[in-house]
Amino acid sequence: MMSRLNLSMLAALGGLSLVPARFAPDPAPLRGFTAATSRVEREWESKFDAVPDPARMRANLELLSARPHHVGSPYDLQNAQWILAQYKSYGWDAHIETFDVLFPTPKERLVELVAPTHYKAKLQEPPVPGDPTSGQTAEQLPTYNAYSADGDVTGPLVFVNYGVPADYDELARHGISVKGAIVIAKYGGSWRGIKPKVAAEHGAIGCLIYSDPADDGYAGGSVFPKGPMRPSQGVQRGSVEDMPTYPGDPLTPGVGATKDAKRLPVSESPVLTKIPVLPISYGDAQPLLEAMGGPVAPSAWRGGLPITYRLGAGPARVHLVVKSNWDLKPIHDVIARLPGTSEADQWIIRGNHHDGWVNGAADPLSGQVAELEEARAMGELYKQGWRPKRTIIYAAWDGEEPGLLGSTEWAEEHAQELEQHAVAYINTDGNGRGFFHASGSHSLEAFVNEAEKDVTDPETHASVWKRAKAQEAVRAAESGRSAAGGPTSDIRIGALGSGSDYTPFLQHLGIASLNLGFGGEDQGGVYHSIYDDFYWYTHFSDTSFVYGRALAQTAGRMVMRLADADVLPFVYTNLAQTVQRYTSELEQLRDQRARQIDAENGAIRAGDFALASDPRDPTSAPALEVPPPQFNFAPLLNAVDTLNAAAVTFEKSYNSWLAAGDTATAALRGANEELLKSERDLTSPDGLPRRPWYKHLLYAPGFYTGYGVKTMPGAREAIEQGEWGDVNAQIARIADALRAEAALVNGAAATLHGGN
Amino acid sequence: MMSRLNLSMLAALGGLSLVPARFAPDPAPLRGFTAATSRVEREWESKFDAVPDPARMRANLELLSARPHHVGSPYDLQNAQWILAQYKSYGWDAHIETFDVLFPTPKERLVELVAPTHYKAKLQEPPVPGDPTSGQTAEQLPTYNAYSADGDVTGPLVFVNYGVPADYDELARHGISVKGAIVIAKYGGSWRGIKPKVAAEHGAIGCLIYSDPADDGYAGGSVFPKGPMRPSQGVQRGSVEDMPTYPGDPLTPGVGATKDAKRLPVSESPVLTKIPVLPISYGDAQPLLEAMGGPVAPSAWRGGLPITYRLGAGPARVHLVVKSNWDLKPIHDVIARLPGTSEADQWIIRGNHHDGWVNGAADPLSGQVAELEEARAMGELYKQGWRPKRTIIYAAWDGEEPGLLGSTEWAEEHAQELEQHAVAYINTDGNGRGFFHASGSHSLEAFVNEAEKDVTDPETHASVWKRAKAQEAVRAAESGRSAAGGPTSDIRIGALGSGSDYTPFLQHLGIASLNLGFGGEDQGGVYHSIYDDFYWYTHFSDTSFVYGRALAQTAGRMVMRLADADVLPFVYTNLAQTVQRYTSELEQLRDQRARQIDAENGAIRAGDFALASDPRDPTSAPALEVPPPQFNFAPLLNAVDTLNAAAVTFEKSYNSWLAAGDTATAALRGANEELLKSERDLTSPDGLPRRPWYKHLLYAPGFYTGYGVKTMPGAREAIEQGEWGDVNAQIARIADALRAEAALVNGAAATLHGGN
Repeated sequence: MMSRLNLSMLAALGGLSLVPARFAPDPAPLRGFTAATSRVEREWESKFDAVPDPARMRANLELLSARPHHVGSPYDLQNAQWILAQYKSYGWDAHIETFDVLFPTPKERLVELVAPTHYKAKLQEPPVPGDPTSGQTAEQLPTYNAYSADGDVTGPLVFVNYGVPADYDELARHGISVKGAIVIAKYGGSWRGIKPKVAAEHGAIGCLIYSDPADDGYAGGSVFPKGPMRPSQGVQRGSVEDMPTYPGDPLTPGVGATKDAKRLPVSESPVLTKIPVLPISYGDAQPLLEAMGGPVAPSAWRGGLPITYRLGAGPARVHLVVKSNWDLKPIHDVIARLPGTSEADQWIIRGNHHDGWVNGAADPLSGQVAELEEARAMGELYKQGWRPKRTIIYAAWDGEEPGLLGSTEWAEEHAQELEQHAVAYINTDGNGRGFFHASGSHSLEAFVNEAEKDVTDPETHASVWKRAKAQEAVRAAESGRSAAGGPTSDIRIGALGSGSDYTPFLQHLGIASLNLGFGGEDQGGVYHSIYDDFYWYTHFSDTSFVYGRALAQTAGRMVMRLADADVLPFVYTNLAQTVQRYTSELEQLRDQRARQIDAENGAIRAGDFALASDPRDPTSAPALEVPPPQFNFAPLLNAVDTLNAAAVTFEKSYNSWLAAGDTATAALRGANEELLKSERDLTSPDGLPRRPWYKHLLYAPGFYTGYGVKTMPGAREAIEQGEWGDVNAQIARIADALRAEAALVNGAAATLHGGN
Repeated sequence: MMSRLNLSMLAALGGLSLVPARFAPDPAPLRGFTAATSRVEREWESKFDAVPDPARMRANLELLSARPHHVGSPYDLQNAQWILAQYKSYGWDAHIETFDVLFPTPKERLVELVAPTHYKAKLQEPPVPGDPTSGQTAEQLPTYNAYSADGDVTGPLVFVNYGVPADYDELARHGISVKGAIVIAKYGGSWRGIKPKVAAEHGAIGCLIYSDPADDGYAGGSVFPKGPMRPSQGVQRGSVEDMPTYPGDPLTPGVGATKDAKRLPVSESPVLTKIPVLPISYGDAQPLLEAMGGPVAPSAWRGGLPITYRLGAGPARVHLVVKSNWDLKPIHDVIARLPGTSEADQWIIRGNHHDGWVNGAADPLSGQVAELEEARAMGELYKQGWRPKRTIIYAAWDGEEPGLLGSTEWAEEHAQELEQHAVAYINTDGNGRGFFHASGSHSLEAFVNEAEKDVTDPETHASVWKRAKAQEAVRAAESGRSAAGGPTSDIRIGALGSGSDYTPFLQHLGIASLNLGFGGEDQGGVYHSIYDDFYWYTHFSDTSFVYGRALAQTAGRMVMRLADADVLPFVYTNLAQTVQRYTSELEQLRDQRARQIDAENGAIRAGDFALASDPRDPTSAPALEVPPPQFNFAPLLNAVDTLNAAAVTFEKSYNSWLAAGDTATAALRGANEELLKSERDLTSPDGLPRRPWYKHLLYAPGFYTGYGVKTMPGAREAIEQGEWGDVNAQIARIADALRAEAALVNGAAATLHGGN
């Protein structure tokens, strides 16, 4: 509602009659609400907005990050119990669900250069004076990569850049094999778990991963504690479970890791690495890299150390030892419920994990404290009489860091109920400072944009939508073009790969999902280190917790709207436009691959690579590749058209419903029951090639990139990897899903307002 | 002629009858020659090819680089006299021409950090054990930039990236002014003289230029003496004369700097810097850069030092002192002549400088020793009875390093004769190892390609043409496209900006010119340092001088063909295609600027830049710019069509002449006299805007980039710099020149074989 001050100002400008505040024209009704229900919803929202409190977030962050709280630690359990108590105090129905998961912790770690000189890596992050929690050495998990194979290996060192498949192609052109070697890869360029996986596929016997200072060290700013960036001995811990195959407990794929679940023997889990792997600091990496010989690394591979980066192999030889305790550990998910009324069997789920690698202030607690404030605010509203139509479930997941354990086991354990009842899952993880960003299901794209417009950016006082839109326009202008879609079009949300707890909901169960957060003005280099703590966060990130409040206002608002809407606020035109774009991308990808293979094969056959090679630093030609045939995109193109038509039909039906304004009909209930399942139709029970756990046909983490998303992954990865024979079948599967989706949307349109 | 061995091999493959060698089919006649004269020319060429001797080049390089030989040094004169004696011993008519030029040398140099800590820069390259000439400290020119203004200044330090105008726009967006400051710029990204020029335009009071290790230091390989790259204390000397305004003696623009030439007072020369400038090593730069504060530099600005690059201004404050002796010094050009016969008044000119910044082994002597071997070989041929039709002039220029002094003064002094007689100028400078590259007048593009096909690459034994073509194909394939033009099309030669002695010939006098050399497999970081010496060259570059021989074979062959051709071998279809491409580029440049300005102005007016700025590290919007109107490209497009038609007509006429095979007609002589002047028609007596010394309308060094070429510079720079009101007039001037060129080419076609 417009404030009196603003109305007076408008009046003072002349030409406007002074309308009493209570007759000020309402904004357009919220999606899914009638004019009347929208008015009520907005009133509750403005009450909601006033509750989340930066001071409480700060206090909660300090408390929750006071000690290391990784899986299996005493403080992890203590945090879960404290969170549980909070929910109860907010008036929620809450409990802890416990699972028993494989969680190896290090028993022995060694990295030493044994030739041509000797250097023993420190593998230890030093405490920083003035930063109290950095000195909690006894409780800190050592620097390591969880789910690394045990091993004791010695071999020549090879530098593999980011360690993705194309890097090995480049090495091969220099005549360098990693067979029997230990590779050293930079963090970045792919999810870390890809690095030992690809290294092992190429015959390496060990893998080191280090944080190059060009990526998150001194190149980007002063290092901790003077600035936010990674100091010389800072190490990024992290999981190397093969999550693109499946996340969650490595021993219980597809089912909840309950006490008596059937478990794979550790030796048979397909998601543990095949070779030992350890993360190291750039302080430890420099002596190893400096000792290397061989060709100078291509310029794109070089980092920020003051050395000549070389490929190897050798003369540097490294001895690497990794041994772990392969124990089961309990994880503690806190699950809280605010009951729905008329649609209590429809669930809106919201989550953020609570476990950290060490003190985990930014990751994940900065998101967790926002989530807690949302819950507290909803509890307040509940006390004031607010009754959500749908049931709201708030979760604080444990074990996200090792492999989305808490969310995955819970989603697997409750799969049947979730498939029946879940409307949407809204995830956050660590929160920062800057621009709002959202990724997820494109049927929620319009919904996200609408919510963003109603939240104020705390530093510029524009809406967070307007600020994100401005960033889009500036980026476009700086690269010499106008922003796509014009100044009022929806901001496109990204697609979800993996890397946080939405994965089991979206990609395993087909529940419409979102991942939200603020960032982009919170650069740092403490990710997964002992320095990601209260001191760092309150000096360098969202120091006054105003973006924490904005996140609570955004995510909480979305939860409330989903819970209260008369019609579930899915808009399929955005989805149809998105799949149309993905389809065009696939066609272009095919053509680009064809051009590239044609040009390369031509140059190979003409002997051009041989002739262009430097005799003193020879490179061989790449391997000949089979050029792609034309693929049959017709089913997909037709399905996209069909979906688009259905989406338009649904919009007409929705508008007719809105005009009628009837909120308590059987038609409405029926339509919502159909809409609730619309994301399910984008999945296939058979899942993706080589990884049946992943069922979503539009979004998946890349098999060879990890967190990074591959959209329409079955077809896209077949094209990228040159598996030409598989492409048409994958296209057809996606087309089938889109046709089913179109049928569902048409059905829902008819149910909602058949006579439109 | 095909060797007997190869014929036997062909015969052994079957299917070919064994043709006696003397009946082997001749290759197609050389351009400009009939079948008969071509056969004779090829016979002389094969004799020529056998003479250039790597062992002599090595010995000559060792001798010429034995001591520092900069302008004014005893060894500079001694080298000139030795070269003169060589030419005489080869049978050439040779003499030395001397000019007196302004050549400042340092009297006082100081760079010290005075706040927040103290550091005094060493400004000294240390001798390297094992490298004998690096220890000739007493004779070495100190590290400095010639033609820097004298000054004694103190101010805060600002990091300006490469110091080009766009870098100052970026600084302005961060609220950073260089007014009253000393700037520190990286070498690279523009010619060095641009850096103090642009800094002074923005109000800076001093300028430091340093060699970043990411550019030519340890990032690219081991540093000298272990490898070829720039060591920590290595410094790039060099001229900062404002050569894009005019090169040559700063006091005698447009006329030869003879003893009694009229001279500007030093204080009135427009090509000296306005502020003091000194080059420094990265060893000296690191303490200064490390002491800086202010915003973190954009990622594209960062170099390879293990520090956080920051913009400043300050808190680092620097005290910079530069004082020079502003003396006139003599320079000694060696000019040698091999007389022509029937066309003695047509001159083919070939040059390479002999002065170096210090010992100058790679730059310039590696090219000089090839040129000497060409001259020796031509002397041998002359003794055996070869008599070139045209007069051949070989030059060894002095004073190239400070500002193309020797070539410019000679060209200015002999301007009238040269305009009358010069057919072409062929330049080389330092030579390396790898791929052949040529740049220059596009009427010689086909000629260059033809010659390249007849020279063998010494390491792969393919023709240097085929190897360069292979590199083109590989580069295209690696970026996913097929090479332009297909496998048999001419390799496009580059356009010439500046940076070596072709500039006065091509851009001041309008003489068709080429610049040739080998490189690309000879990485190094000793440019303009004491380490560019015999030791470095014979360890890291063309160590066996086989590319020196290949250069002599390529350049010498071109000189002989130009000197002996019946019809001067200009091919205007390549020129027409090139100007067509340049015209398209200008149209695209206009459209791209329009799009960019439109997008930026839109985002500025919408307040997007303000909203997207980080409140903790604010950047302002760029300034609004006036969008470009549509320009009238019609005259240029029409002129290109006209030139293209004329070029085709000339090719028909040439083919008719070739079929007739008549080599001694008045028509032929008349046509050659016209062709000789065809490059002159591409110039205008008024020269370019703001720099009338530059007369060529197609090629010039960029006013704000230096060495880098701007093609169609009048129009292109007007568009780049937003001087919209000037563009149409500049387009029209170029169109006029192209129409005149077309008329000349049509005339020559009619003269050569009017009845075709």
